[in-house]
Amino acid sequence: MGKNLTTRAEDYSKWYNELVIKADLAENSGVRGCMVIKPYGYGIWEKIQAELDRMFKETGHKNAYFPIFIPKSYFSKEASHVDGFAKECAVVTHYRLKNAEDGSGIVVDEEAKLEEELIVRPTSETIIWDTYRKWIQSYRDLPILVNQWANVVRWEMRTRLFLRTAEFLWQEGHTAHATKEEAIAEAEQMLNVYADFVENFMAIPVIKGVKSENERFAGALETYCIEALMQDGKALQAGTSHFLGQNFAKAFDVKFTSQEGRLEYVWATSWGVSTRLMGALIMTHSDDNGLVLPPKLAPEHVVIVPIYKNDEQFAEVDKVAKEIVTDLHKAGIRVNYDNRDTQKPGWKFNEYELKGVPLRIAIGPKDVENNSLELARRDTLTKEIVSREGIAERIKNLLEQIQQNLYNKALKFRDENIREANSFEEFQEILETHGGFISAHWDGTAETEETIKTLTKATIRCIPLDAKPEQGVCVYSGKPSTQRVLFARAY
Amino acid sequence: MGKNLTTRAEDYSKWYNELVIKADLAENSGVRGCMVIKPYGYGIWEKIQAELDRMFKETGHKNAYFPIFIPKSYFSKEASHVDGFAKECAVVTHYRLKNAEDGSGIVVDEEAKLEEELIVRPTSETIIWDTYRKWIQSYRDLPILVNQWANVVRWEMRTRLFLRTAEFLWQEGHTAHATKEEAIAEAEQMLNVYADFVENFMAIPVIKGVKSENERFAGALETYCIEALMQDGKALQAGTSHFLGQNFAKAFDVKFTSQEGRLEYVWATSWGVSTRLMGALIMTHSDDNGLVLPPKLAPEHVVIVPIYKNDEQFAEVDKVAKEIVTDLHKAGIRVNYDNRDTQKPGWKFNEYELKGVPLRIAIGPKDVENNSLELARRDTLTKEIVSREGIAERIKNLLEQIQQNLYNKALKFRDENIREANSFEEFQEILETHGGFISAHWDGTAETEETIKTLTKATIRCIPLDAKPEQGVCVYSGKPSTQRVLFARAY
Repeated sequence: MGKNLTTRAEDYSKWYNELVIKADLAENSGVRGCMVIKPYGYGIWEKIQAELDRMFKETGHKNAYFPIFIPKSYFSKEASHVDGFAKECAVVTHYRLKNAEDGSGIVVDEEAKLEEELIVRPTSETIIWDTYRKWIQSYRDLPILVNQWANVVRWEMRTRLFLRTAEFLWQEGHTAHATKEEAIAEAEQMLNVYADFVENFMAIPVIKGVKSENERFAGALETYCIEALMQDGKALQAGTSHFLGQNFAKAFDVKFTSQEGRLEYVWATSWGVSTRLMGALIMTHSDDNGLVLPPKLAPEHVVIVPIYKNDEQFAEVDKVAKEIVTDLHKAGIRVNYDNRDTQKPGWKFNEYELKGVPLRIAIGPKDVENNSLELARRDTLTKEIVSREGIAERIKNLLEQIQQNLYNKALKFRDENIREANSFEEFQEILETHGGFISAHWDGTAETEETIKTLTKATIRCIPLDAKPEQGVCVYSGKPSTQRVLFARAY
Repeated sequence: MGKNLTTRAEDYSKWYNELVIKADLAENSGVRGCMVIKPYGYGIWEKIQAELDRMFKETGHKNAYFPIFIPKSYFSKEASHVDGFAKECAVVTHYRLKNAEDGSGIVVDEEAKLEEELIVRPTSETIIWDTYRKWIQSYRDLPILVNQWANVVRWEMRTRLFLRTAEFLWQEGHTAHATKEEAIAEAEQMLNVYADFVENFMAIPVIKGVKSENERFAGALETYCIEALMQDGKALQAGTSHFLGQNFAKAFDVKFTSQEGRLEYVWATSWGVSTRLMGALIMTHSDDNGLVLPPKLAPEHVVIVPIYKNDEQFAEVDKVAKEIVTDLHKAGIRVNYDNRDTQKPGWKFNEYELKGVPLRIAIGPKDVENNSLELARRDTLTKEIVSREGIAERIKNLLEQIQQNLYNKALKFRDENIREANSFEEFQEILETHGGFISAHWDGTAETEETIKTLTKATIRCIPLDAKPEQGVCVYSGKPSTQRVLFARAY
């Protein structure tokens, strides 16, 4: 198709990297590991944000904003948290630059050294719980249901656009509750919100589960997660929701007077999704022609390309195209009428296919005559000549069909790629020939999990919430097990 | 009113600080100079964001995201920019922490020192123009109309919530153009967008003007600004829009091939408003009873407080209150029905007055009987008993009246506080007795401006765009001048 895009079969990883660049989603910046999210990519992220934000508010949450810097000592307060987060991070040590005495440029002013180093937040539990101490005295102050949209920094050594970057954008919910039960219910509720969003808005099927102890968030008692499957058979964690118990309340001394007058530690949750979702979106739906976007996330639902040979033809086509634009706008359809004369129709077809616009209308003099137009679907790459009559209604229906079709296709692929393994040989064979999820018995020990990871690079993605109790023996150790868990190689 | 709020007459500065805390807008964090924006304050900021974002998009701009870190060397590339911005800033020097060998906690890992220090962005011209070099080759790639919503850091020594904080939230537009005229038109357009927003949405009258050279943005050829007047007679710069000429294009080598085939440097603008607007909002409208919010910015338009003595009365009142909620929702009015039984009506009245909710409905058994309710206005502190009939319509009209009333009141105050000074004695006297804006002749030199600032702490806030040519002599030097400029002490 002239897109010069490496195919998925050739080199999936290269295909991904090229697609992110060519579809104008993001690019690397002059700062190691930090990306620039380009307007088209950011437009998709804004759709993700808007819908999630709506869902958070509908479940009673409000947004707030906490500092980007966290004093180093805060991390030491929660023992497991510090190991998980405070190591590979950006450390601010000075607050001033000055002109070099030898005139060579600007240098760090050594006299402006901070007494205590500041860490650029990798996640905000510590600074937020230090704040909640001031907000919470009584059960009347609970629950606190707060979310923050923010940038965070984790000093990753090997980075990939959207999937793993030093700086990324995310939301982090941080809630405080009077009881354990309420906190667990909140963590589960947010897992369901994420699953609902990712499945119904992004058209990506997910498996809900909990993490094994090894894979748990540093500081959590339980990490709930949703796991998706990419087209190359690798899993991707699309969102997590943590039940944090009283760990952060104890670390930051956050107590409340209960209705019965007792002084108790507060219960906590935190939950987040990030620009990583953009990676999941790309790798679930796109093809060798470029991006494929579910209509609900597409910045533009329809692009209209006029076809003409001279000014006279353009005038005819332009008039009809503008009428269609008006019709579609009225129906709430996002439409881009690309009437630039600096680019040819072929170039435009290519461009919008690459960018994953769900529907394309081409309209020429013949169509004007016949009261018709050419309608092309990005997901199936099919096109048909249709009447202009009722075009808005037709497109609305098509957009719904495309949304559903993308989900069904991804679901079929996902379900075909969950395989049971009952021996370690079978486990390894599935991994090498198919990838995907492997449903297998596990003895529940961190040692076995670690060994399997070392031998195969596969990790336990989750213990599915809907797993049925089943007697069996661990696929590696042969020890008894009561349920299967899902393994996969993962992003 | 039992709010324990210092009055404005007593101590304006203390009144402001207390109000920000007591109205739950923001508070200081454990990190020097960095604030926590609390849910209620952030709710107002979200309204500001949503409307500005809509206006930016309507004028053809798209959002994108650029890295939070900027390599130190980038700042040295634009000579005047480095002096203005790269000095008081947060400097990242290391990317790892480790456990101290003596077990005393975590320390910076000296082996993880960055080759080049990274600056936490104080503004993003440099990193963005480094990126635009890759985006721009031909006139076809222009204009680029991009905005970014982001956090920025400037290491301020004396900080005040919203007005001056080390970290703050803002938006920064960065556009690239083929011609000087187009860039100037863009800078002027965005100034008008800001003025429109601040006047019609925030109900704050502003004066549009340009900055003197002294007060110009570091790297700009022209800085357009809108200036507002606070109740204590000090001015506040509410937004700026800069025509940057080709300075950044030259510093970052950004050229394009023009339609005529010539290689030319690109023309630039940048423009921004920040959470400082929250400070302007508070100081323009609020009173000794607390916050006063223009309806368009209020997270809640109306609060309903039920009045009852027993369960039976509550049941009656609750039924009617819920009907009113439904009516108001249908009319697009944001309503909070506060039926908590943990707080008394008096406490609630106080609370919502402090938080500036524009309208309050109180409803008791007597009202249920009479099909009436008590409606109180926050801006005038008046209340009346009105019929329930047509309440949604009445409230819609009232909200519009309140919005207009707040603007008119602020405009009257502002206009009464612009005074002409024709001698330096007069200048000083006005400043000491009234404050406000002083319209005076100025000889156009940086020296005079500097001297006046040293002597009086007043600066040139702007050279108004609508200033009439007028022959006169400089209020300080006695040298000839052709137009008056506006001086004031400022935030």
